[in-house]
Amino acid sequence: MKPATAEPTLRILDDARLSTPDQTRLPFEHHLLTLASEADCAHAIRAMQVRGAPLIGAVAAFGLAFAVRQAADDESIAKACARLEQTRPTAVNLRWALMRVRNRIVAMSVPERAAAAWQQACLIAQEDAQINRTIGEHGAALLRDRTEHRARQGRPVTRTEPLQVLTHCNAGRLATVAHGTALAPIYAAHADGVPLHVWVDETRPRNQGSSLTAWELADAGVPCTVIVDNAGGHLMRHGQVDAVIVGCDRVARNGDVANKIGTYLKALAARDCGVPFWVACPTPTIDGLIDTGDRIPIELRDAREVTHISGIDDAGRLSEIRLVPEGVDALNPAFDVTPAALVDGLLTEYGLIRADPAAVTAVLVRAGRMAA
Amino acid sequence: MKPATAEPTLRILDDARLSTPDQTRLPFEHHLLTLASEADCAHAIRAMQVRGAPLIGAVAAFGLAFAVRQAADDESIAKACARLEQTRPTAVNLRWALMRVRNRIVAMSVPERAAAAWQQACLIAQEDAQINRTIGEHGAALLRDRTEHRARQGRPVTRTEPLQVLTHCNAGRLATVAHGTALAPIYAAHADGVPLHVWVDETRPRNQGSSLTAWELADAGVPCTVIVDNAGGHLMRHGQVDAVIVGCDRVARNGDVANKIGTYLKALAARDCGVPFWVACPTPTIDGLIDTGDRIPIELRDAREVTHISGIDDAGRLSEIRLVPEGVDALNPAFDVTPAALVDGLLTEYGLIRADPAAVTAVLVRAGRMAA
Repeated sequence: MKPATAEPTLRILDDARLSTPDQTRLPFEHHLLTLASEADCAHAIRAMQVRGAPLIGAVAAFGLAFAVRQAADDESIAKACARLEQTRPTAVNLRWALMRVRNRIVAMSVPERAAAAWQQACLIAQEDAQINRTIGEHGAALLRDRTEHRARQGRPVTRTEPLQVLTHCNAGRLATVAHGTALAPIYAAHADGVPLHVWVDETRPRNQGSSLTAWELADAGVPCTVIVDNAGGHLMRHGQVDAVIVGCDRVARNGDVANKIGTYLKALAARDCGVPFWVACPTPTIDGLIDTGDRIPIELRDAREVTHISGIDDAGRLSEIRLVPEGVDALNPAFDVTPAALVDGLLTEYGLIRADPAAVTAVLVRAGRMAA
Repeated sequence: MKPATAEPTLRILDDARLSTPDQTRLPFEHHLLTLASEADCAHAIRAMQVRGAPLIGAVAAFGLAFAVRQAADDESIAKACARLEQTRPTAVNLRWALMRVRNRIVAMSVPERAAAAWQQACLIAQEDAQINRTIGEHGAALLRDRTEHRARQGRPVTRTEPLQVLTHCNAGRLATVAHGTALAPIYAAHADGVPLHVWVDETRPRNQGSSLTAWELADAGVPCTVIVDNAGGHLMRHGQVDAVIVGCDRVARNGDVANKIGTYLKALAARDCGVPFWVACPTPTIDGLIDTGDRIPIELRDAREVTHISGIDDAGRLSEIRLVPEGVDALNPAFDVTPAALVDGLLTEYGLIRADPAAVTAVLVRAGRMAA
């Protein structure tokens, strides 16, 4: 079953069930998962059936809400939070969402908690969609600025010479409850009639770019081309990239950005080539508790994600093959940290802010996450 | 049939046949090709059964020698050169080797040419092995310097904390007649007892790193670990890389380096992290005719190399799968240019030289390729 473009990635079917596509089977198989328990949510996050920092946060919030229905005493809630927090280490939205649900309900009487937890999870999901829509509007304005920049350079943006945006990994609607973060500006500008083309980094080892981003952009009618992760620097050196927009999994108070492995290399090339490098950053992805990116835990994943790969064979069957000779090891760090100095701005629901301690602190205050 | 480590990649079986492994089938199938005509050589280069700038040069030289046996008049030689030169556009060794054979024989009488062309091709192959052995010796000295640098930093190189070298693509013995270029220093230092570990960039889209470099290093007993191309920057930021050594396909007179796509990104990260970035560069890979890397033609290869990939399935069969959804395009530039300013030195058979016009010109004079 192929989800329609306009549909949110996470749907609340009723007061006891969620529905979301199994992203480990996209783009070749469209299978909707039903999540109806804490264990369902935890498994979906751990197995990367759902992924993307905002979507992980929302699913974890529902996971906690399901848990609270089973046992709503303080100790059970603390244990459920600990279990859910361990599913993935890097994206801070997970911890943020769990704390938000927990903080909402701990002062309540035990019988009130289950309904309040569910309500809070629903609110987190609604807010994610709203935040991303707003990021899309702010980002579309930046892309229109780039369009004007091209015109001033004597290379006007046209259907045949569209605005060229490069993105890494998937920070699209599949990474969120709806709309996406890095792709939200692209969808908004595309809807506004800006001629756009997206260079989609394949994003090894799990190929979220070629499997998820390319699929959702094509599904939405946005022109795009897949490139290997090695190619973006070459394209930037040749004036074929007008802007880089990526998502993020955790941003430190100084503006350092943890995102999918390889993001740092694209940020270096963007700086070297004078291409703006923007990070779409909903404020729930900012970690108010750490000063710098050095303290962000980087998930090391199974070497098998590097040594093996899945796709469809001639017969259209999903099939896995080995790429690396037997006996050779692989290392698989899933994220890297891009220093704030390489980030031309964090694109939040409050607009584009500098990646520096003052601006990041100010936006946390504005979001009600810190006292002024 | 598995070639032994010590064997050259290109073997001259007799005065009419060459033998070389089919690199499109490695590491999972070991099949030796026999090359016995210009067409065999041209096909092997075009189909990337042989690849790597030095090996392409040697095979092209033999291709021309085979052609001269068929027809040794000036016009036939010119046509054979044109045909062979078109097989791959970026590696300049191809043109260099063809010109060398041609220049050697044009002043001779037609009946003398075939034997002289074959002799010259054999000489090119012998010299490649000798050049690479010398590059290995010079490079091993650089690696010993890095070992001392580690000791001065209070992080001595040991079996458990070996010297960490990162390489991209395959510039090993499989890319040359023998010994390799970027891997020659690694083999030499390993033979000297320096504890070494190599981070092998997978090198999408054709995975020459995970398929060829990992295979030949493992075969030679050099510890190595495959990483995706996205991961090298992260490792450099975390002090896990002591040096980067890559090969090259063409170097301009100003020291700009064309090499496998993605090399530029690693050079940027090395500079940002203070890691030396060395380019193993036999002088035949220097193009004396162009001033800067902007003029190096960059091969655009079939999108299918990005959208599909081969490996072995559960049953041990070589199998191809599709990675990218139907209807989504891919772009596949095979090389990029790393600006000379990012190169900490060109490791030639005359030692490490600066990547600048004066030093490159001086080494061309020394190699007898330019008048003093």
